[in-house]
Amino acid sequence: MNSFTLDSRLANDCIVLGEMRLSLLLLLKNALVPWFILVPRRNQTELFELDREDQEALLEEINLLSNFVKGLVGVEKLNIAAIGNVVKQLHVHVIGRNSEDFCWPNVVWGRPEKTPYTDEEIGKIRESLITKLPEGSLRLT
Amino acid sequence: MNSFTLDSRLANDCIVLGEMRLSLLLLLKNALVPWFILVPRRNQTELFELDREDQEALLEEINLLSNFVKGLVGVEKLNIAAIGNVVKQLHVHVIGRNSEDFCWPNVVWGRPEKTPYTDEEIGKIRESLITKLPEGSLRLT
Repeated sequence: MNSFTLDSRLANDCIVLGEMRLSLLLLLKNALVPWFILVPRRNQTELFELDREDQEALLEEINLLSNFVKGLVGVEKLNIAAIGNVVKQLHVHVIGRNSEDFCWPNVVWGRPEKTPYTDEEIGKIRESLITKLPEGSLRLT
Repeated sequence: MNSFTLDSRLANDCIVLGEMRLSLLLLLKNALVPWFILVPRRNQTELFELDREDQEALLEEINLLSNFVKGLVGVEKLNIAAIGNVVKQLHVHVIGRNSEDFCWPNVVWGRPEKTPYTDEEIGKIRESLITKLPEGSLRLT
């Protein structure tokens, strides 16, 4: 039985782009930096609590997404993190940073600045993901 | 040829506790929260750039350290992150958080608060690591 339900705050703050093997792939509703979130469809709250097979799957998804984000125009550094102090549901941030972005070199968490995406921009991100990720690794929703 | 040298800022801000299979294990000189840092002895700057074998080794080290930190008195949540906006050398933070710690629920990065460890406290951390990590997984330095 799969009792997984996406946390309501993640659902509110993000667009669900699709499903990977283990995780939902979300895009934070903030166009200031490319900010993706992987949410394993599991109920553990810490990375080390996932079983080995799920850890391997998550690692692979982080790798695929990292490679994608690193290839975006202007991305110089990745920030990868599982924090979860507020939203306990296990989720991993994969964020592309640029030395001229809105809060470089500080971390992005806890900052109030926000710029919405247009529907067109979101469409382009979906299209780019499907083009650049290995076939079958992401099912858009 | 191993050309690895610990970044001078990490060397300055941390105590080198020892060596794991892939990584140096550091303790940040800040007793406000249990804050460990794994530094793979490699020259890549992003997690996804490590080869698969090194990724597996790092994952195992994160697991071991996570289990250790989660077992410390007062630790309720782990924060695991590879950021590296300032110090490019690949390093992974493994931090134990408590809902009454100095900046909960905010992230710890970028905060100025700092409390030094005593030599006795550091000695106890070393002793605890050696007692609780699987035999052979950490060589104290």
